Amino acid sequence: MARVLEMDIPETMKAWVLGDPDQLRPVEKHVPHPGVAEVLVRIDAVAICATDLEIISHGSPALIDGELPFNKNFTPGHEYMGTIVALGPTVDEYAVGDRIAVEIHAGCGRCPRCRMGMYTSCLNYGANFGAFPKGHRANGYTTDGAFTQYAVNHVNTLVRVPDNMSDEVATLIVTAGTATYGLDVLGGLVAGNSLAVTGAGPIGLLGVAVGKALGAGPVILTDIVGERLKIGTRLGADHVINAARESAVEAVQRANGGSGVDFVLECSGAPRAVDEAIAMVNRGGRVCLAAFSHRPVSVDISQIVMNNIYLFGIRGEGQSAVRRAAALMAQQKFDASPVHTHTFPLSELPEALRHAREKLNGAIKVVIRNQEW
Amino acid sequence: MARVLEMDIPETMKAWVLGDPDQLRPVEKHVPHPGVAEVLVRIDAVAICATDLEIISHGSPALIDGELPFNKNFTPGHEYMGTIVALGPTVDEYAVGDRIAVEIHAGCGRCPRCRMGMYTSCLNYGANFGAFPKGHRANGYTTDGAFTQYAVNHVNTLVRVPDNMSDEVATLIVTAGTATYGLDVLGGLVAGNSLAVTGAGPIGLLGVAVGKALGAGPVILTDIVGERLKIGTRLGADHVINAARESAVEAVQRANGGSGVDFVLECSGAPRAVDEAIAMVNRGGRVCLAAFSHRPVSVDISQIVMNNIYLFGIRGEGQSAVRRAAALMAQQKFDASPVHTHTFPLSELPEALRHAREKLNGAIKVVIRNQEW
Amino acid sequence: MARVLEMDIPETMKAWVLGDPDQLRPVEKHVPHPGVAEVLVRIDAVAICATDLEIISHGSPALIDGELPFNKNFTPGHEYMGTIVALGPTVDEYAVGDRIAVEIHAGCGRCPRCRMGMYTSCLNYGANFGAFPKGHRANGYTTDGAFTQYAVNHVNTLVRVPDNMSDEVATLIVTAGTATYGLDVLGGLVAGNSLAVTGAGPIGLLGVAVGKALGAGPVILTDIVGERLKIGTRLGADHVINAARESAVEAVQRANGGSGVDFVLECSGAPRAVDEAIAMVNRGGRVCLAAFSHRPVSVDISQIVMNNIYLFGIRGEGQSAVRRAAALMAQQKFDASPVHTHTFPLSELPEALRHAREKLNGAIKVVIRNQEW
Amino acid sequence: MARVLEMDIPETMKAWVLGDPDQLRPVEKHVPHPGVAEVLVRIDAVAICATDLEIISHGSPALIDGELPFNKNFTPGHEYMGTIVALGPTVDEYAVGDRIAVEIHAGCGRCPRCRMGMYTSCLNYGANFGAFPKGHRANGYTTDGAFTQYAVNHVNTLVRVPDNMSDEVATLIVTAGTATYGLDVLGGLVAGNSLAVTGAGPIGLLGVAVGKALGAGPVILTDIVGERLKIGTRLGADHVINAARESAVEAVQRANGGSGVDFVLECSGAPRAVDEAIAMVNRGGRVCLAAFSHRPVSVDISQIVMNNIYLFGIRGEGQSAVRRAAALMAQQKFDASPVHTHTFPLSELPEALRHAREKLNGAIKVVIRNQEW
Repeated sequence: MARVLEMDIPETMKAWVLGDPDQLRPVEKHVPHPGVAEVLVRIDAVAICATDLEIISHGSPALIDGELPFNKNFTPGHEYMGTIVALGPTVDEYAVGDRIAVEIHAGCGRCPRCRMGMYTSCLNYGANFGAFPKGHRANGYTTDGAFTQYAVNHVNTLVRVPDNMSDEVATLIVTAGTATYGLDVLGGLVAGNSLAVTGAGPIGLLGVAVGKALGAGPVILTDIVGERLKIGTRLGADHVINAARESAVEAVQRANGGSGVDFVLECSGAPRAVDEAIAMVNRGGRVCLAAFSHRPVSVDISQIVMNNIYLFGIRGEGQSAVRRAAALMAQQKFDASPVHTHTFPLSELPEALRHAREKLNGAIKVVIRNQEW
Repeated sequence: MARVLEMDIPETMKAWVLGDPDQLRPVEKHVPHPGVAEVLVRIDAVAICATDLEIISHGSPALIDGELPFNKNFTPGHEYMGTIVALGPTVDEYAVGDRIAVEIHAGCGRCPRCRMGMYTSCLNYGANFGAFPKGHRANGYTTDGAFTQYAVNHVNTLVRVPDNMSDEVATLIVTAGTATYGLDVLGGLVAGNSLAVTGAGPIGLLGVAVGKALGAGPVILTDIVGERLKIGTRLGADHVINAARESAVEAVQRANGGSGVDFVLECSGAPRAVDEAIAMVNRGGRVCLAAFSHRPVSVDISQIVMNNIYLFGIRGEGQSAVRRAAALMAQQKFDASPVHTHTFPLSELPEALRHAREKLNGAIKVVIRNQEW
Repeated sequence: MARVLEMDIPETMKAWVLGDPDQLRPVEKHVPHPGVAEVLVRIDAVAICATDLEIISHGSPALIDGELPFNKNFTPGHEYMGTIVALGPTVDEYAVGDRIAVEIHAGCGRCPRCRMGMYTSCLNYGANFGAFPKGHRANGYTTDGAFTQYAVNHVNTLVRVPDNMSDEVATLIVTAGTATYGLDVLGGLVAGNSLAVTGAGPIGLLGVAVGKALGAGPVILTDIVGERLKIGTRLGADHVINAARESAVEAVQRANGGSGVDFVLECSGAPRAVDEAIAMVNRGGRVCLAAFSHRPVSVDISQIVMNNIYLFGIRGEGQSAVRRAAALMAQQKFDASPVHTHTFPLSELPEALRHAREKLNGAIKVVIRNQEW
Repeated sequence: MARVLEMDIPETMKAWVLGDPDQLRPVEKHVPHPGVAEVLVRIDAVAICATDLEIISHGSPALIDGELPFNKNFTPGHEYMGTIVALGPTVDEYAVGDRIAVEIHAGCGRCPRCRMGMYTSCLNYGANFGAFPKGHRANGYTTDGAFTQYAVNHVNTLVRVPDNMSDEVATLIVTAGTATYGLDVLGGLVAGNSLAVTGAGPIGLLGVAVGKALGAGPVILTDIVGERLKIGTRLGADHVINAARESAVEAVQRANGGSGVDFVLECSGAPRAVDEAIAMVNRGGRVCLAAFSHRPVSVDISQIVMNNIYLFGIRGEGQSAVRRAAALMAQQKFDASPVHTHTFPLSELPEALRHAREKLNGAIKVVIRNQEW
């Protein structure tokens, strides 16, 4: 098979950039050039994450050029996949034509956390500007993201997408990677252990799927939306609990044979979620916090201390969990497709965002096809 | 050297037991007999812990015989050392005459957590009564403790006390074990890492000492009592901060060269302590919660999630950390004696408790000599 | 549902005991009584392990009553399952009538290793005799095993067998637990990592199955017997390599895309196996040694040091891996039944052993039905 | 305090390069320029390591430009310290004038191992040449080292040297880092655990010092040279054993109260060392292999498997252990100076190497002063 050396690459591309808060406007941008250890990715599809909606409204968690990203030509979007169309110097790990998904964080590679392999906890998070830019990248958070047609990425953030996986499903690899990372920080050895997932958004639903794939049992999902719980059942949840109708804590423990669960993966960000999570687990149980509410919440610390509970905050993926998630999906250990509900062309991004924000027509994951304008 | 086979052991002993809440009364009890894998300990000294005061006022965290411990002949007290005076069947790990300190938790040895070595997270915590008692012990919490003259203990809870360590200092081994365990759950490899200890009670002060012994640096101590901070300095703190006079968060970061610390050991239980701890650490930082307030507190979960912070609740010691602490003390890596401030005979326990509760005359650790009546 | 309180239990039972080396003779033994935290198990089925053959010929790895087990009334056999027929004092974790499989090691519960949860590394391994017996049990190794009809076991060694699993397959749970433990010590997070399994005996074959269940890929199996490799393929191996026909090291690396694998699970005990394993892995790769040859072998230590390779010896299961394996099997993540090839009644144990020893008719796992005489 | 912006830097420097095997010749080289995230180090002192002698005789463990390093203008030397004299673009972590020691390995930052933080196990080890150089650096192994006057290094390999530490002692930081890493891979929590160090070369001696600093006990050192054992005693060894005069295995266990030790740090590379190490440890014990003999050795694998022993090969330092070692030395937890025995100017490198090779006059660490010619 002949190796494709370089694909046709245009000089410019369509891109959406932030104007004022809650505004996006289409522009033409130059297609960027890959540097050492980087590739140029033709973005084929990107999924909309709740954090994208946050960034569009309130700015990113890190500053862009030392300021909020509004009117800075900044392009959000971070859950994407595509095709490699050019290789930067020294790259032979991938070939032009390879389909890949992209991990969000690259890390600066020079701080103590990166040196430890904790690149999502990079101490130079967002320090991309000024006289001493440190090289950290978090796609669509602190550097330009994927609501456009091309992007440059470091080879260590790429994972391969198998031929038989659709573009839309491949955009879920990074989300599944976050769910996988959540289970990893809980200890990783989940087979035969009880797991409650609170919140049936994309991370929670894929948390159910990954947990089941790795043998957790029972896997119990809570949410307040019946339709989402049904999808949880399709993804394998042993029990689903509508927390709008009954006490989630009591129902989870009842579903677990009357005792606290070993693990909770908290994906709801509900104000009572942390307090409920620490009430759901047994002594020595562990809780991963993958979501949060915007206001401080009330927590009964005595429960954490007296019961030897550990809490692990995670900001997205980490520790190469995206590769493990991609492997599980490539092996068809679970079918992520029920999480994908809508598709729009890049030209209709605002409408796609509206579906995601308002959860129109049962929207969970809304996917953009980036080459369609 | 001749081996002492058994010491003179009386039939009865003096013991303090709980009457109504906040009441202790002296009684005579039978000296217990050691079973398989157990020894009889002549208690030489016991230190008063804040939890003892809790139990005397409000009952123990687990029920005694299925009920609160009041008027149940229950004896509290858990930070003790003594001399082995008799060996139960099959015991040859220790000899009569050995001086030992006693780890609080024995674990049931039959639940999944004990099977994992997590005996302080025993799922049968306090299940010592009824038709199916499970064998869990937590001295002075769920089984009779040390405000008396003899106790039976399992060999796996014992650690040796060297000849050149005083009884009073040896009562601090368990407290130092809790501090050590706190550093262990934070990752253990503390050398060269920055550590803030919040709260200069006994666990916090010994957290400073153990942290310094293992090479943490800088070690920063916060409290609101100047006298206690001075003892922290004697125990090796690189910086002490009076949180009554300045912002603890800002002062800690300033003392750490302007950035967040790697680790926080929270020993104050102050209402704002958790929120301040998660503000003190850097991205990927870790917090051990070794104390708690009795009321739920406000916590900014977004900080935990966005900065990949881990929180570890610990209820006392665990994972054999007491043995590591005892080794550090036996090697004189630090001098715990400044933490010990007062001594009383067992007959004056109520007065000793009053000193501990009201922190009279700068009381930190008040120690009882159990054979003096 | 009425709870069965106790099943009919005879006073005596059939048992095979060691006579001289390589001899077994049938005797009648008293059915034992369960103590505190123990149950009486009616053994329904037991699988023959290569170690049983060792013990019958050469004695157990630990002494029985301080001597080799020959002519000591010792009953070997350790991979068994059965039905609980009586509960010892304090047991309510299980009910009479429950089907269970039994982990081999109980641990003494009093040494530092047991205190750490490392009960298979019990420092009192085999110290079951004399004036200071320590309570360690390794079924069929250091205490009476399962080539009989009843056994007493501690509740912490039991795992439940689901209704829809046959007795014969349930005997494989412990073997699968060893394979699972092997993957756990390698790091546990095997999804997407390359794994070579060397040796297609029962542990190796189930190592393939567990590895595939947890998402390892590619999983490559080596052996010198074509028939066994075929079973490996049925259990999911991505590649099988006949090491009698080609270089195992080269073939494994070729099957892995030209580079060393991340993990090797060595189950052959072949003289060259360790040296080949450390040549198969990549830098930073890990090797679990679950088998061994009886004579010292030649190892190129420079390879281990220069490539940062870790080797983990495991003697059977550990760290509750049997529970994880049982969960994977109960969830039908893989079908272990191809590993089971022959069945005999207990009365025909010698013939069954001959099949296992001589690998007659493609014997892999030979299972005994213990209630058939 | 004014910040020094740049020191006087010459255009060329003295350097020793490999000619034919066992030959070094002096040349003039251009002083290199630091790139992004790099600094220029004026090398003040470098210690000679046994591996330097290896490389001078046999070449480096990786190829240089795809070939052995002879007559390639290659400069060995890797245990060095110096002063930062220029900063590359984006560097503000350090200032000109800072004294630093340099970790050997930089890692490529793009392979899966580097992504995991295992930069010393970089899968692109030595891949520094051809069309696809990957950016891996191992000073003096795969890229130019320190038998010269200036070097360029990545900021993530630097550790600060305190003012009160001499240049000569500071060259030992990297060696102490290797010893620290050895203890870290053994589990890190060494306080109160028994440790045997086999081989009293620099790594072994500093292993004794670091082990004692972290509270290990007893720490037992073996060697066959009485003079080196005496230095071990000065560094704190509780017991020293001359393995030329008695059985090291028996003597170590006797020194540990009759039982196997918890940990062995093997630093001798003696042919029998591995077999002895696995005989020295107790069940569940762990062995770090930090040295190796050049020929395959005989190992009793059954001992490893039956006793659940783990072996960890390490090639130098890793996981930022150098920073922990530097912190312990800066805090004067131990005095490394007895390990340093000789000093030579850079111009006399051949004579210095002869001292190191032939262990003249009790030579252990021979240090070069690089600015003296």
